[in-house]
Formats: sequence, C-alpha cells, structure tokens
Amino acid sequence: MHDQVKIFDTTLRDGTQSEDVSLLVEDKLTITEILDDLGVHYIEGGWPGSNPKDEDYFRQVKSLRLKHAKISSFGSTRRAKLKVEEDPNIIQLVESQTPVITIFGKSWDLHVKEALKITLNENLEIIYDSVQYLKKHCDEFIYDAEHFFDGFKHNPEYALKTLQSAIEGGADVIVLADTNGGTLPWELEDIIENVKARFPNVPLGIHQHNDSELGVANSILAVKHGIVHVQGTINGYGERCGNANLCSIIPNLKLKMGIDCISDENLKKLTSVSKKIDEILNLPHNKHLPFVGESAFAHKGGVHVSAILKNPKTYEHIVPELLGNSQRVLVSDLSGISNIMYKAQNMGIPIDKDSKAGKSALAEIKKLENEGYYFETADASFELLLRKHRGEIRDYFEVLSYTVIDRERCDNSERSPVEATVIVKVKDKVEHTASLGNGPVNALDNAIRKALIVFYPNLAELALIDYKVRILKSEKGTGASVRVLIQSTDKKDRWETVGVGEDVIEASKKALFDSIIYKLMKDDGLVSKR
Amino acid sequence: MHDQVKIFDTTLRDGTQSEDVSLLVEDKLTITEILDDLGVHYIEGGWPGSNPKDEDYFRQVKSLRLKHAKISSFGSTRRAKLKVEEDPNIIQLVESQTPVITIFGKSWDLHVKEALKITLNENLEIIYDSVQYLKKHCDEFIYDAEHFFDGFKHNPEYALKTLQSAIEGGADVIVLADTNGGTLPWELEDIIENVKARFPNVPLGIHQHNDSELGVANSILAVKHGIVHVQGTINGYGERCGNANLCSIIPNLKLKMGIDCISDENLKKLTSVSKKIDEILNLPHNKHLPFVGESAFAHKGGVHVSAILKNPKTYEHIVPELLGNSQRVLVSDLSGISNIMYKAQNMGIPIDKDSKAGKSALAEIKKLENEGYYFETADASFELLLRKHRGEIRDYFEVLSYTVIDRERCDNSERSPVEATVIVKVKDKVEHTASLGNGPVNALDNAIRKALIVFYPNLAELALIDYKVRILKSEKGTGASVRVLIQSTDKKDRWETVGVGEDVIEASKKALFDSIIYKLMKDDGLVSKR
Repeated sequence: MHDQVKIFDTTLRDGTQSEDVSLLVEDKLTITEILDDLGVHYIEGGWPGSNPKDEDYFRQVKSLRLKHAKISSFGSTRRAKLKVEEDPNIIQLVESQTPVITIFGKSWDLHVKEALKITLNENLEIIYDSVQYLKKHCDEFIYDAEHFFDGFKHNPEYALKTLQSAIEGGADVIVLADTNGGTLPWELEDIIENVKARFPNVPLGIHQHNDSELGVANSILAVKHGIVHVQGTINGYGERCGNANLCSIIPNLKLKMGIDCISDENLKKLTSVSKKIDEILNLPHNKHLPFVGESAFAHKGGVHVSAILKNPKTYEHIVPELLGNSQRVLVSDLSGISNIMYKAQNMGIPIDKDSKAGKSALAEIKKLENEGYYFETADASFELLLRKHRGEIRDYFEVLSYTVIDRERCDNSERSPVEATVIVKVKDKVEHTASLGNGPVNALDNAIRKALIVFYPNLAELALIDYKVRILKSEKGTGASVRVLIQSTDKKDRWETVGVGEDVIEASKKALFDSIIYKLMKDDGLVSKR
Repeated sequence: MHDQVKIFDTTLRDGTQSEDVSLLVEDKLTITEILDDLGVHYIEGGWPGSNPKDEDYFRQVKSLRLKHAKISSFGSTRRAKLKVEEDPNIIQLVESQTPVITIFGKSWDLHVKEALKITLNENLEIIYDSVQYLKKHCDEFIYDAEHFFDGFKHNPEYALKTLQSAIEGGADVIVLADTNGGTLPWELEDIIENVKARFPNVPLGIHQHNDSELGVANSILAVKHGIVHVQGTINGYGERCGNANLCSIIPNLKLKMGIDCISDENLKKLTSVSKKIDEILNLPHNKHLPFVGESAFAHKGGVHVSAILKNPKTYEHIVPELLGNSQRVLVSDLSGISNIMYKAQNMGIPIDKDSKAGKSALAEIKKLENEGYYFETADASFELLLRKHRGEIRDYFEVLSYTVIDRERCDNSERSPVEATVIVKVKDKVEHTASLGNGPVNALDNAIRKALIVFYPNLAELALIDYKVRILKSEKGTGASVRVLIQSTDKKDRWETVGVGEDVIEASKKALFDSIIYKLMKDDGLVSKR
C-alpha cells in the first residue's frame, strides 16, 4: 500500500450519466471551482467528442484560475476504420488542449467482437495508435481499461494484452475499470495482484461502479493492494446505481487508512461540498449519506443517546467535525428524557428536567407522541412547546371560527375551487374574511394568512415549501387521524412544524398556526438562532 | 464458505431507528407478512422493553399465519443491579412468547467501563445470566455481540471472553456486530478468523452498519469467511447511515456467490418488496438502489444503449428479471411496457399491446404515471383501468354532485363533525342524501356509501382498512397535488385502489370510487381471482 493516492473526480463526466443529472456549462464551471477548492488532483470535465456543451466547457475552463486540480478531457480510442489523426473524436480531444487526456479502450473480448465487431488484434492496434498519438498532445495521459475485471474473468491473457498496448503507447497511468459494477471484493483483489505481477512498475488506478453496492469497498481494497489513483464522483452520482462515492472513499483513505490524498483542512469542507453540489444539481441531499449526511451522526435510540453523552466514541466511528459534519440527537418515542434535554440545550432553551416547566413539558411531549406527534423533523413546534411551558408564548392571534366548503358538480366541467372563511381576533380587533384554494387546506391557509396579514405584514414573507401528510391508526380507514408536517421559509430561515388531528384540515391547521407563531416570534427575536 | 446462509431481517427493530421511519403496529404487521412472503428466516419484530407499541405488536403478531419466518423479540442483557428474573426488560422478553429471542451484550471494555460503569467481570456474569435464563424460554436464542469489532481492536482477549460467556449460557448463534459501522474489510476478515480459531464449532452471524459505506461488502466478506447468519434491513433503513442493505446482500449471495438463502421464486419479489415497504413507510423509492432501483438497469449513455441492444451482458452485471426488475432504455419511450404486460398477464387479463385496447390502456397508464399515479400497490385500480379499455366496466352508478362542509368554532368546545351531501344516480333512480364524518373524506365516504347501499346492499360488507396520503410536487406547499392509496376488504378479499387529485378530497374520491366499483364487479364475478 502506498501512502499517497491521487483523487480523480469524474462528477462532470461519468456523473452526468446519472438519470437525474443535467448540467449547464455555467454549473460545470462552478463545480470545477468547488472541486479544485476541495483539493482533488484531477477533474474530468467531459467528453468533447460526445456533445457541444462539453466543447464549450473546455473552451471556458481555461480562463479559471485553479489552485490545485488538473483538468482532463475524456474520449474513446479511434474508430476502427479511421486513421488516428483523422478521427473526429480524437481531434476534439487534442483541440480541448487540456493538460491531461483520458480515453477508454476495450479490454473484454466480448465487447470487441459484439460491440465493435472487429478482431482482437485490430483492437490492440487501435489502443496503441490512440494512446501514442494523444500522449504527444498532453502533459499526462490516463488510459481507462473499460470492463477490465469482466474482461479478465473471460480472457485474462487478452485483457492483459490490451494493457500492454496502452503501456507501449506511453500511458502514464493504467486505470482498471469495473464498468458494470459486478465484481466481488476477492475477485478484484485477485485480479489486481495478477496485473501487478505482470506490470510491476506501472502506476495503476481504479474506476468502480456501485451496481452491487460495493463501489467504495472495492475502491479502498484496490488501494490496499497498491493502486495509486482512485476515480469516483461526489455523492456517487453516475449511470444506473452510480459511481464509487468520493465522499466516502476520501474519509476512509484519510481517517482510517492514514493515506494522504487531500489536506486535513480541505477534508473539513467535504460535507458542505457534498451539499453544495446537490444544490447545483437541484437534487435533495440524502441525509443518510455516510460521513457527510445530516443523519450520519444523528442519534435516536435512548440507549445510544445516554451513552454518547458520556463518550461520543461509544456510537461514533469518527469525529464528525473532521468532515465539517456534526452530532445531532433526535427526539422520538424510542428515546428517553436525555434526548429531549440534549435537544433543548442545543436550541439554547434552558430547561431543567426537574423544574415545573421541565416536568410538564416532558409529560406533554410523551402524551403528544402517543397521539402521533413526531418532533424529530419539527424543531420549530418542539421549541414552541418548550417555550409554552416556560410561559414565553405571546397571544399573537386567536381564530374564532372557520368554515371550509368544497362543492363539486361531477359533470366533466372544470373543477371549482374550495372556499374557506375565517374569523380571527388580534388583541381586540376582529377580522372576518374569505379565500379560495385548490383544496380545503390550501383554501384555509390562504384565508387565515389573508386575515392575519392585516395585523402582521411580515407574514407576506412566509411561504410553505414542503407539506407532508401521514395517516395514523390507519385501520380506521378514512376515519383515521392524520399527522401533517410543514416546512416553511421566509427567505432568511427555514423551519418545520407538525400538527396531528382527526382529519387533514384540523391537523394542517395546527401545523400552520405553529408555523405562523414561530415566524412572528422569530421576528420579535423570541426564538433561538439556528 | 457454507452453501446455506440464514437471513435475519431487523427492519422492524433496527430499521425503525432510522430518522425518518415511524411505524404503527398495523404497518409492522403488514411488513411482517411481506417479509415472510419474501422468505427471510427471521423477523426481529421490536424491543418490547423499550416501547408499548412493540409490546402490542408481539401480542398481535401471534395471530398471523406465517409461512416461513420465525419472529424474534429483541432486548438487552439484565441490568447490573437486578436479578435476571426480576429485570423488567428480561420479563418483557419472556412475556412476548416468541420462538426466538435475541439480546445484545457489551463486548467493548470502553462501554462496560464508561456506559455501564461496572467491572469487566460483572459484565461477563450479566451476559451469562441473561443468556442462560432466556434460553429456557425460547426455541432458539441469538446473542448479538454489540461493538464486537471495536471491542476486539481495543481488547481482543476480553471481547472473546464475552462471547465465551454467551456460549456457555447456551446461545445458539453468536452475532458479531459492527455497531458503529467503522470496520474496514481486512480488519473484519482478520477478526472473524480469530473468532473462528477460538470457537471453531459455534455458528456465527454478522450485523453491519453502513457508516463507512461498507455494510454490504463487509456482510458478504463475512459469509466468504464462514458466517452462516446475516442481519440487515430492507433498503438499508437504520440509525445514522443505516444497516446493511438486504436488498443488495441477498442478490450478491444468490446470484454471485451461489449461496442458498431465499428461493429463486422469492428473489423475483425483491424489487416489489423494496418498493412496497417504502410506500408503507411513506418514503420515496431511491431509483439508484443497486439491484432493485428503477435506474439499476436504466441506460442513458448512447454507447451503452447501442451495446446492450446487441447484448445486455455488455453493460448489465446480472439479469434484472431475476429480481423482478427490468431494463430501461432512457432514450426510448418503450420502457415500462413489458412490465405492464407482465403484470396484466399475471392478473389473468388477456391484453395484447398491439391491440386497440392495449395501445389506449398503455397510453393512459403513461399519462397517469406522469400525473403521479402509482400502480405497484394498487392492483385493483390497475385491473379496472385495463378492463375499462376492454369495455368491461358496467355503469354501476354516477355521482352527480357532492358538497363537503367543515365548520369549526374554535372555542374549546367539542369539535363538530364534518357534513357531506351527495346526489347519486343509479340507472334512472336518483338518491340524494347526507352524512356526517370526523373529517371531510370520512364524511364524503359515509354519504356516498349510504346513498349506494340503497341499490347495492352488498356494499354494507365493504370496509376501508388502510388509507395513505402522499403529497406530490410538495414544493408547492399546501397547493401540492395528492396521491391517496386505499386498502379495502369485504372480509373475503382485500384490494388496493389509488387516486390522484389536486386535493385530498378529490384524490380520495377517485380511490373510493375504484374501491366500490371493484367490489361490485367482484360480486358479479367480473374481476380476476387473486
């Protein structure tokens, strides 16, 4: 095992093969800067031969001042019928003028015969030609041996010959790709040892896919067996099940294997890089991601919580701050008093579990949880509840009554909107108003806010960005009770509230009221900073 | 390596430690039936000592007729200060009367000293006492050695002693748990070999967490080293980054390692089990999941697509149909048709994709799926849709109009019920009636059935047993559109229907109508037997 490994990021190339990823050139340039700032060694920017967007990227990326990363273009070996210098795809690679060029070639005889439909020898010539020609046009040349592991399993001698051709062509690094992601750890170890025996002095790399959920494991096992170059993507984006996830590989290399790949300082950026890039791709950040997920160091079970309060090592395999992540404690019916106290402290709500307020708050939380309340994802409701027991909630408003009317004529005419009317009282003023909505909850929401905005203009900033409904005790069918989780924002902050009731309107009403009260208290500086 | 491995599912216990998982007893019973049907050997149902919901589950699960799986309860070793027979947590385990009991004990000296705050020897006695006492109260006893790998790294002799105590106590299986998920593959292999050397004849199990994104790899490596019992959860639910994902472990064992764990027939259910359980948990199904994800065999890249059309092996590591999954080619709109045909055939609905009915049905299904319909768990609606295009649906009734009125006075008086009125037409008779309900959907449901029962007395047998709401496009807040899934029964059969609409009432109405029509057609012998 070597003590230094190079990180080759292909988020912008293989990552964009992911079903839900589609990037503008501007996005690609922004991501390039983020990756450079993270300290990866190589950034594979795209396949200039395959789409004009990527040509454009390579034109523009030259003007970025990068601190650390080298940009690589990506392409394939020359076509069978063409001279290397006449192959448009090869010409594009040269024209993108990147310091590094990476191409893939066929290692698996099945592909040579069935996909390329040429002879095994023709493929060897194609590899040699392409490598030796492109090597002249870049500082560093990387050869990706596509399907190397599958190829080796079917025809080891031939698979090794393809590497031989690339090495003779002058490749600086030979990357062994598990393109279909089907290779098992012990197969991978065995095959790498075979390659090392044949080419003891050639720097080797690994390119893994996650189709068997082994992408990260195989990548670090490859390093254990002497690989010095690891390819992957941020958050494991990629075709099908994705590429090997650099957000897990890098911490494993740094913190568990003691291998130098990015600096300790840069490692602290990993969590925010993972989130930022999801933002740019407009994808939700998976909270369960190892190392960088919001839940990666979140503790729910009561046993766990009481233990980590004594010593975090008891249930945390690493120190989250090393990755810019942090510990969280969740509140739920699985958890004891300790979670609630810990959470209250973190929110800066001084509450003593033996005080009158503490006891009554705890009693109410348990009661509400039995009714189906769920505070884990509803911090704002949780905070309001604690503050209520401390007598800190002001009487901002009172809803005296509301009516929701949903009248449908079931001829195929346009669906008519739902109507809601409300009477709200603020101090001694009463406001009676009505509003329409495309559903009962939406109509009620509109009516209540319309009435309150008269008194609290700030509420104009309030917007609901997420709304989730869960039916409880569902054996009662439509008579079941309902839990509603709402996420709100006022552009400055985001907060979550929860409501449970006999029906969706009542439950939504409670969550809406919490959201509005939280917003009003926030503007009065009466809630804790997040 | 053994050729037979037992699958121990802890979705209902460790899986519920996941931040976004909160299950009702009814959900747990449904999931129990799904897991049994999948053919897992053990189902860990919960921790009776830790919450009342789980005690309730163990009371009710006895009445399920399971085909294959054994139910296990879960708990911890006795408390230091208590006699084993007086420890409430131990008593709960005995009272749950499960054929299998699983408890965890401490293997890591750090935990013994810092979490339990007792001596190392006291912990050994605690393990021995607890195991030998509980072993008398079950057919099979499983001992989970919590933090075994971390424990072994810090104090191998002591970690092995804790296993010794459990073995002397009479444990049938010793499960080595990587509780913090921080163990690297080669460490795991080395430690397992150490345990085998000390206890050559003891059946060993593995319990992995995914904190280093190594959960699946470590689980199958453990099997390679002779482990015969593998614990995990469906879709890898679990605290923090989740438990080892059985939806990846099972296919790796079956298809790549040739190990017998579940039958080939049951393996075909894996994709739908993965989706169904996400639906029950009200979680979106991650399309990038290995083996069972919608994208696991979806091809986007042009090179890949043309190659797989020549030979799927070129870019697919296994045959997706073995898992009930299928290939998708993202550039072609043909995707999905085969699944639909497959499902129609399975339901015994003869439909030819080139017939007029077939084409129009397929077109409507595509349209509905884009609107957010989901037929995976709504077979009845799916069947009605196909039969509609075959012109087989009778005009049982027509709802001319309905009105729902929800009027609240928000003084703390009793909540007044919601009122619904409907006008329905059957043949040329019109029935106008009204009913109350504890919510808008419930009121409408009551009114419609009250009106129809006049014409179809059988509807008295119809009962809704499950009702789920999912908000689609939730960024729109309360204006989002809604999907409702309803499960109905008439004591003889169960069926699922789905509706999507702008609001919960409209969506529920559609699902309710499907349920009623399905019941009426069923009584007329016009639907296929399940």
